[in-house]
Amino acid sequence: MKNDIEIAQSAEMKPITEIAAQIGLQEDDIELYGKYKCKISLDVLNKDTKKEEGKLILVTAINPTPAGEGKSTVTVGLGQALCKLNKNAVIALREPSLGPVFGIKGGAAGGGYSQVVPMEDINLHFTGDMHAITAANNLLGAAIDNHIHQGNNLKIDARRIVFKRVMDMNDRALRNIVVGMGGKVNGFLREDGFMITVASEIMAILCLSNSLMDLKERMGNILVAYNLDGEPVYCKDLGVQGAMALLMKDAIKPNLVQTLENTPAIIHGGPFANIAHGCNSILATKMALKLGDYAITEAGFGADLGAEKFLDIKCRYGGLKPDCVVIVATIRALKHHGGVSKEKLSVPSVEALSKGIENLEKQIENIKKYGVTVVVAINKFITDSEEEIEFIENFCNNLGVEVALAEVWEKGGSGGIHLAEKVLNVLESQESKFKCLYDEKLCIKEKMDVISKEIYGADKVTYTKAAEKQIKEIEDLGLDKLPICVAKTQYSLSDNPQLLGKPSGFDMNVREVRVSNGAGFIVVLTGDVMTMPGLPKIPAANKMDILEDGTIIGLF
Amino acid sequence: MKNDIEIAQSAEMKPITEIAAQIGLQEDDIELYGKYKCKISLDVLNKDTKKEEGKLILVTAINPTPAGEGKSTVTVGLGQALCKLNKNAVIALREPSLGPVFGIKGGAAGGGYSQVVPMEDINLHFTGDMHAITAANNLLGAAIDNHIHQGNNLKIDARRIVFKRVMDMNDRALRNIVVGMGGKVNGFLREDGFMITVASEIMAILCLSNSLMDLKERMGNILVAYNLDGEPVYCKDLGVQGAMALLMKDAIKPNLVQTLENTPAIIHGGPFANIAHGCNSILATKMALKLGDYAITEAGFGADLGAEKFLDIKCRYGGLKPDCVVIVATIRALKHHGGVSKEKLSVPSVEALSKGIENLEKQIENIKKYGVTVVVAINKFITDSEEEIEFIENFCNNLGVEVALAEVWEKGGSGGIHLAEKVLNVLESQESKFKCLYDEKLCIKEKMDVISKEIYGADKVTYTKAAEKQIKEIEDLGLDKLPICVAKTQYSLSDNPQLLGKPSGFDMNVREVRVSNGAGFIVVLTGDVMTMPGLPKIPAANKMDILEDGTIIGLF
Repeated sequence: MKNDIEIAQSAEMKPITEIAAQIGLQEDDIELYGKYKCKISLDVLNKDTKKEEGKLILVTAINPTPAGEGKSTVTVGLGQALCKLNKNAVIALREPSLGPVFGIKGGAAGGGYSQVVPMEDINLHFTGDMHAITAANNLLGAAIDNHIHQGNNLKIDARRIVFKRVMDMNDRALRNIVVGMGGKVNGFLREDGFMITVASEIMAILCLSNSLMDLKERMGNILVAYNLDGEPVYCKDLGVQGAMALLMKDAIKPNLVQTLENTPAIIHGGPFANIAHGCNSILATKMALKLGDYAITEAGFGADLGAEKFLDIKCRYGGLKPDCVVIVATIRALKHHGGVSKEKLSVPSVEALSKGIENLEKQIENIKKYGVTVVVAINKFITDSEEEIEFIENFCNNLGVEVALAEVWEKGGSGGIHLAEKVLNVLESQESKFKCLYDEKLCIKEKMDVISKEIYGADKVTYTKAAEKQIKEIEDLGLDKLPICVAKTQYSLSDNPQLLGKPSGFDMNVREVRVSNGAGFIVVLTGDVMTMPGLPKIPAANKMDILEDGTIIGLF
Repeated sequence: MKNDIEIAQSAEMKPITEIAAQIGLQEDDIELYGKYKCKISLDVLNKDTKKEEGKLILVTAINPTPAGEGKSTVTVGLGQALCKLNKNAVIALREPSLGPVFGIKGGAAGGGYSQVVPMEDINLHFTGDMHAITAANNLLGAAIDNHIHQGNNLKIDARRIVFKRVMDMNDRALRNIVVGMGGKVNGFLREDGFMITVASEIMAILCLSNSLMDLKERMGNILVAYNLDGEPVYCKDLGVQGAMALLMKDAIKPNLVQTLENTPAIIHGGPFANIAHGCNSILATKMALKLGDYAITEAGFGADLGAEKFLDIKCRYGGLKPDCVVIVATIRALKHHGGVSKEKLSVPSVEALSKGIENLEKQIENIKKYGVTVVVAINKFITDSEEEIEFIENFCNNLGVEVALAEVWEKGGSGGIHLAEKVLNVLESQESKFKCLYDEKLCIKEKMDVISKEIYGADKVTYTKAAEKQIKEIEDLGLDKLPICVAKTQYSLSDNPQLLGKPSGFDMNVREVRVSNGAGFIVVLTGDVMTMPGLPKIPAANKMDILEDGTIIGLF
């Protein structure tokens, strides 16, 4: 059997001009980056194409386990399946970051026969969006220290600079650093640190902007520091948001590629799913809706974390209205939620499954609170037993929820036909009554209360002294009327990664509260958040190579 | 009168596919980056095109002064002029770096009616080469600290890590930093620092490589540190050169753009001219020779620094043989060399000119030592008097050197016809007898002696104790049989920027000696070298903006 990279490398790609033409894009609507990638002009969004806006399908998942769920693979496979049914489907995904590619994780391009290609390019520099974000971010970083060095008119408090430089690399040595050493010509000494590029607020802003002018304004609103009087200093006070927007002029345009079966896929933006909202860009999703009759997109991590942010942050800012939510589960992962150890997941056990399925049940219940109909996709593994499959089907049927097996890893689009039919059925028969979960005008604690009780099933929320102080500060600055972006473990509905299934009787413990004023959300942190990963003992980079004939080795 | 950006923005560009076709490139030979930029496949170099290799014309200059010489402008203008004479000319230039664009300096795309376009793209992210270098460099940076963190099998001495991380930004706060703070999970504490990307050894390697495999091997040979026994640790010991080559797989391909008059221009590579050799890539120059009958390229700074490195380093590694060298001078600059202050350069003075012209004389003499014929280009200014022009023409004629006025800033190619004719005359009548100045197998001090006495006109070379120790160390490691890359002021033939004209009776004072073992040269530093610039009080970035209709403001 071929592995992912072999499958990807043997793909028969069409020129991207053909894929673009397939969805009505003309020559002037795109800019080529080689033969198989292009950027789409934002002008397309304002064109009168006489086409109704497409239906929006969100793919999310149960809380992830070491067994793996295959959310991206199902997203790609579902898009391919819809095309096999002669539907005009467009996929919208996040773009991967270089850092993890060289570390452990690898990219985010699906798997098996449900992948986006050209995989190597997508996972390396792609069309340069990450590099543009790095440059814009670090221009602001340099401007802050330069301002202090050149006289500090704004009276920036060097102890209270909250904006950090970034690098698209896993580099733990840069987490905590001292800058400005070496005397007068080298600036003022201060503590600082680097984040990985995807953790930059500029990435979150890119993903939540509706235009280049919106992007520029939001970048100008980034809270970069406090002055010696405790007042906020924004990016616009340093006057570099115009130059930053100039650096982002191409990065804001969504990128078009294709799947292994030549289904159009828009890949754009990929914010960290913990300190940001974790979804691809609003502009990419809007473009998929503009160009396709069906737009399929995904939300990172478990539905309680990823879908909640998609629905309460991205949909709120983009004016988006999902028509159907697909929740991906695997029988192996549900058994893990039911208490089975990683080693024994291949042994059939309806008992464990019947215990762990409450995780799926809660995620279904949660999505229903938003007024959107759910379809469950069981991403099939060879170890799944007939009895297990029957059990989960019955369970969903009893809840009145559509359910389908997906075999898209092994069979590509044809393995997702059944799922696609169920989704189409929902789209035709059920109207979305989507609404956000809370009013962003509520105060921070009220909003956090709603999310924690309604979505996580917590009893109550506790706050550290530091968090209480931070909330007061944000309220005093009048920056609190924004949606909440919770940073918590993806492994549990609670804030404790050990509590699998559907935990109850727990408190949410808030450790820290920050405002991402440019992106437009309040980050509520419930644990330690790592914004700069490290490399493992043997990094993936050490297995990679490129040979004289251009063959690429070790990328995945 | 229009300024540079207005002229560039009103250019009538042809689609780059047309420019490519003009020089015989087929669809499969190029990869588009938008409509006006493309990369050229390296396979083109091995194609049998039945065309003779072109003639190589190097453009260099007298020692620069605050008056400006316009070397890039003359390079572009000469290429345009040759095209006007129906010659198949291809220009090969360096690519600019983002850092200076946001600082003071601006880009390197020529000026007036002799510019390369699309200017905005070339000066911003272009085709991502700089970002690829940054990523490859910083992967190696992360790998070094990760190796130490994960057990340090190579026994790397954290006090003796010579490889630095880079960023394509002017950011003085990063010059001297401490990394690895915060305890065990964040690695080991050590002093470190960032350089600007163009100062990376990987940039120098890109420019001196003849293929991707050559690039990979050279990156593997970068000396990154010493171990606790004082032995060298190379990049290949960390095993990441394959992944680095993967990151560089597209960056190694030369980029094709055009001038305002649609002359093909290959822009590729731009190493720092002080700690590296300062010329565009060997591959770009080879490509220009392959595709054009005339390849026009330039060497940074004054001929004693830029052309010397071009001839002794780049030509040596690329097997290149220049057929003609154009030395650009301005009457204003020569008067400055003759002792006139910046404020009084507009006042005609044959006396000052006759004094300062010895700088030009020495540069001509130097180039002749390489066996190549010189043509002098006088980049004309409105303040030049008839008498001054006549003086310089007579001076050159007496030396038996061709000389021509160039008015390419104001008139584009038609302002360079006279110069182009002189160059063509030399190419037809004189055969190049090019040879390098010294044998790289000589020991370091012998090589430095030859350059200092022959080219700079120094009496002798002195070395600090530190430099003596470093030379011994490099010789003990057997890494000394490489050409010399002198880091010295560009403003004087000597190592003292105050000594204008043609100084004599001076010593060269060597402060430090480093080996760039991957790039393949010994850097001999004669003064302080800044490898990370800072931003000025009001950075150019603060004047930049992009408007809703896409208009770009303040870029130049």
